[in-house]
Amino acid sequence: MSLNKNNIRAVYPGSFDPITNGHICIAQRAAKIFDEVIVAVLINAQKNPSFSVEERQKMAEEALADFHNVRVCAFSGLLVNFIRSLDSRIIIRGLRAMSDFEYEFQMALMNRQLAPDIETFFIVTEPQYSYLSSSAVKDIFKFNGDISGMVPECVINRILLEGNVK
Amino acid sequence: MSLNKNNIRAVYPGSFDPITNGHICIAQRAAKIFDEVIVAVLINAQKNPSFSVEERQKMAEEALADFHNVRVCAFSGLLVNFIRSLDSRIIIRGLRAMSDFEYEFQMALMNRQLAPDIETFFIVTEPQYSYLSSSAVKDIFKFNGDISGMVPECVINRILLEGNVK
Amino acid sequence: MSLNKNNIRAVYPGSFDPITNGHICIAQRAAKIFDEVIVAVLINAQKNPSFSVEERQKMAEEALADFHNVRVCAFSGLLVNFIRSLDSRIIIRGLRAMSDFEYEFQMALMNRQLAPDIETFFIVTEPQYSYLSSSAVKDIFKFNGDISGMVPECVINRILLEGNVK
Amino acid sequence: MSLNKNNIRAVYPGSFDPITNGHICIAQRAAKIFDEVIVAVLINAQKNPSFSVEERQKMAEEALADFHNVRVCAFSGLLVNFIRSLDSRIIIRGLRAMSDFEYEFQMALMNRQLAPDIETFFIVTEPQYSYLSSSAVKDIFKFNGDISGMVPECVINRILLEGNVK
Amino acid sequence: MSLNKNNIRAVYPGSFDPITNGHICIAQRAAKIFDEVIVAVLINAQKNPSFSVEERQKMAEEALADFHNVRVCAFSGLLVNFIRSLDSRIIIRGLRAMSDFEYEFQMALMNRQLAPDIETFFIVTEPQYSYLSSSAVKDIFKFNGDISGMVPECVINRILLEGNVK
Amino acid sequence: MSLNKNNIRAVYPGSFDPITNGHICIAQRAAKIFDEVIVAVLINAQKNPSFSVEERQKMAEEALADFHNVRVCAFSGLLVNFIRSLDSRIIIRGLRAMSDFEYEFQMALMNRQLAPDIETFFIVTEPQYSYLSSSAVKDIFKFNGDISGMVPECVINRILLEGNVK
Repeated sequence: MSLNKNNIRAVYPGSFDPITNGHICIAQRAAKIFDEVIVAVLINAQKNPSFSVEERQKMAEEALADFHNVRVCAFSGLLVNFIRSLDSRIIIRGLRAMSDFEYEFQMALMNRQLAPDIETFFIVTEPQYSYLSSSAVKDIFKFNGDISGMVPECVINRILLEGNVK
Repeated sequence: MSLNKNNIRAVYPGSFDPITNGHICIAQRAAKIFDEVIVAVLINAQKNPSFSVEERQKMAEEALADFHNVRVCAFSGLLVNFIRSLDSRIIIRGLRAMSDFEYEFQMALMNRQLAPDIETFFIVTEPQYSYLSSSAVKDIFKFNGDISGMVPECVINRILLEGNVK
Repeated sequence: MSLNKNNIRAVYPGSFDPITNGHICIAQRAAKIFDEVIVAVLINAQKNPSFSVEERQKMAEEALADFHNVRVCAFSGLLVNFIRSLDSRIIIRGLRAMSDFEYEFQMALMNRQLAPDIETFFIVTEPQYSYLSSSAVKDIFKFNGDISGMVPECVINRILLEGNVK
Repeated sequence: MSLNKNNIRAVYPGSFDPITNGHICIAQRAAKIFDEVIVAVLINAQKNPSFSVEERQKMAEEALADFHNVRVCAFSGLLVNFIRSLDSRIIIRGLRAMSDFEYEFQMALMNRQLAPDIETFFIVTEPQYSYLSSSAVKDIFKFNGDISGMVPECVINRILLEGNVK
Repeated sequence: MSLNKNNIRAVYPGSFDPITNGHICIAQRAAKIFDEVIVAVLINAQKNPSFSVEERQKMAEEALADFHNVRVCAFSGLLVNFIRSLDSRIIIRGLRAMSDFEYEFQMALMNRQLAPDIETFFIVTEPQYSYLSSSAVKDIFKFNGDISGMVPECVINRILLEGNVK
Repeated sequence: MSLNKNNIRAVYPGSFDPITNGHICIAQRAAKIFDEVIVAVLINAQKNPSFSVEERQKMAEEALADFHNVRVCAFSGLLVNFIRSLDSRIIIRGLRAMSDFEYEFQMALMNRQLAPDIETFFIVTEPQYSYLSSSAVKDIFKFNGDISGMVPECVINRILLEGNVK
């Protein structure tokens, strides 16, 4: 990946298992403010994701194809090390009014302890996506509920292709 | 199950693994307001419950036998579909001042997205039951703690019969 | 007011200073479930409302005119006494994911202590109204911000007529 | 006031405007653990209390007369200075599951900053008092609601004597 | 004020009555990320501030004099209008783990409703400042407590000069 | 263990998997107030700890060796029974402003239900440790992050010796 040096680059990390319309909205809003936004898909060796990292990255790329200054990467290890490797100093996280903000605060303070030069910026999720989460979407799909309006079409297609989700 | 059509029927869903005095209080309060209350035991294929769905349903039925307008059902799949199959439009949930209200809010908003005609009514748990949960009861029993006053007698008998709980 | 005896009547109390689109949504949702919904405007002698109780009642009536089973009343004194005077046993309150739910819980438990036969049902506010409050609307109007989409037309007209709000 | 030096003395500060059964329960529980408990009535020049500091102190004294190791004092100024003047190092505060715990945390950390040798111990209010507050009691009394079971008899008598409360 | 067009300018609004070390830390962190940071002192006609807007602005300017890309302005009216007048699209707010995050969320969503092109970025306050607030500092000063380490020297001098604070 | 009878003994229970600087700070603060503090390492048969109970006890002992009135024990079963076996009536728990205070409240109320004579005292964690948790420390170590300043040296040595952590 070749990115210019003088631009402000923000990193939006997550599991994106799969990417939802809520995630897309956050990425899009960040892309309007910053020169470049990197959607960073966590290769999480510990958890048992429903989709492989390649699938998660592929879906995110398709969903964000229209945003010319958004790119998708996969990463493992400490987030702050990955941020630094990209010459970025900005972490973007969406905060749902009803999400686990305590977990998010802990992560932000921990990351600040590890790398005081890197900042986490929280933006409040659009209200209409406040009930959305990747796991909720998967639960609804399993029981044949309607997930249109919750995830982008490329995710629906991928899920239908696989027939079921973990 | 044959229920009259013109009555207002409310559904109180949960795992009830096992039913506690807190659950019974919620069901009883709902039964004073609505014509019929259906206690809906979730057949949860994903979690690993301590009691089988038959045991959970049986204990709930015994515990609620005195309330003539309360019935116990088991269900699987999307809750809103089950509600509709009963010609109901009301979900009842107890909200403990100290419970995971964020999870409850998310579920309520998600269900509203899936079925805008169905409403979730939250009622605040009686303070004396605010510390109670099925899992806490099971933990206390495992360590030979006193669980009387936390669950109905039929649950105590069932637990004693089994000798231990998962 | 003459209301039938066998119907289920719910009371939705508040200051409604003025009524917002968020309030209207709650009243409307309750009106789909219950036979009659009474929007009860608190004649609050202690606070210093921006609109008189007559204005607040008038605006609520206009805003809810299309809902045939919703009526607007003013009341003072203990809410539970007012509820009983209407032969109702149901209080409806909207709960914003980001509202002062602790205050609401306290009121619900206090009312339950005063009148154990009366239940408070909380319903979660639609996400798009989660940021709305009467006082926020008044602040925005004072600074010439756009309040359309936040309050019904009759409220906008009333505010414009008065020229300013307290 | 003459208190022994080797005893552990805890201070329970508050406005106590008036003292409620919830406050009494906290004082009583602290009195079972510590040698001496000082109920410290804040002479708050800024707020506009409903009862004078003398009345508040008097009611607290009557309500706690049966506990031989509980005493009532009035104080003004910085709490930590008052604590030190009593040779105490312990602040007791009740924490309602639904109270303003953020305010309490801030006060505790601020006091710790001012006096690192003094500790604030929080104890969780009994569930049956979780809905209780001095202001709620006064509101209910104003509207002729029943406040027995919420405050001790000496408070009821004082309120009745005065005829009304601010 | 003459500012370049191509730079990213962030606005950090507040009452700053007076500015604390917590505020300074937020401004400083924002100044490391963005090209320009405008500390915007709210001329709040409704509240009754302890210091005049000129005093508040003066103290902030002195406290932030060392940061060459931080400037201090006063503003009144809708925040989003002020942001636009500066050609900025970024609001910075500190979020204390124990602050009124619900209020902050409501403001952020309301501002987004009024101006969808403007984003509010929340950054988590440094833990050591999490207990700090302007009003706490003033309370401590009133009772002769030690406020060094809580506010910058210029604020201490100003307070001492005035002799007391409202 | 031989402890005097007339002393006030407090118990600080936890998994300590491993002990962090945040835990040590709580133990140390309690040790300044009470005559004896027992750090009680939970032998948790259900969870899958990263370190054996012997290792966890050993690390806690080394980390707390300098505090002459702090001792480390392991225990299993109901906490309240263990407390009683030590002739103690005091549970100490640290409460992080951003921790799961709901879980802590539930435990405290449940323990109070099981043993009304035993009190749980919460003390607010020092802000600089508010982001710390045993699991966060382990995650950071796994990804080669710097954990000095988060855990005592004896824990770092133990972790390095083992080479990896679960």
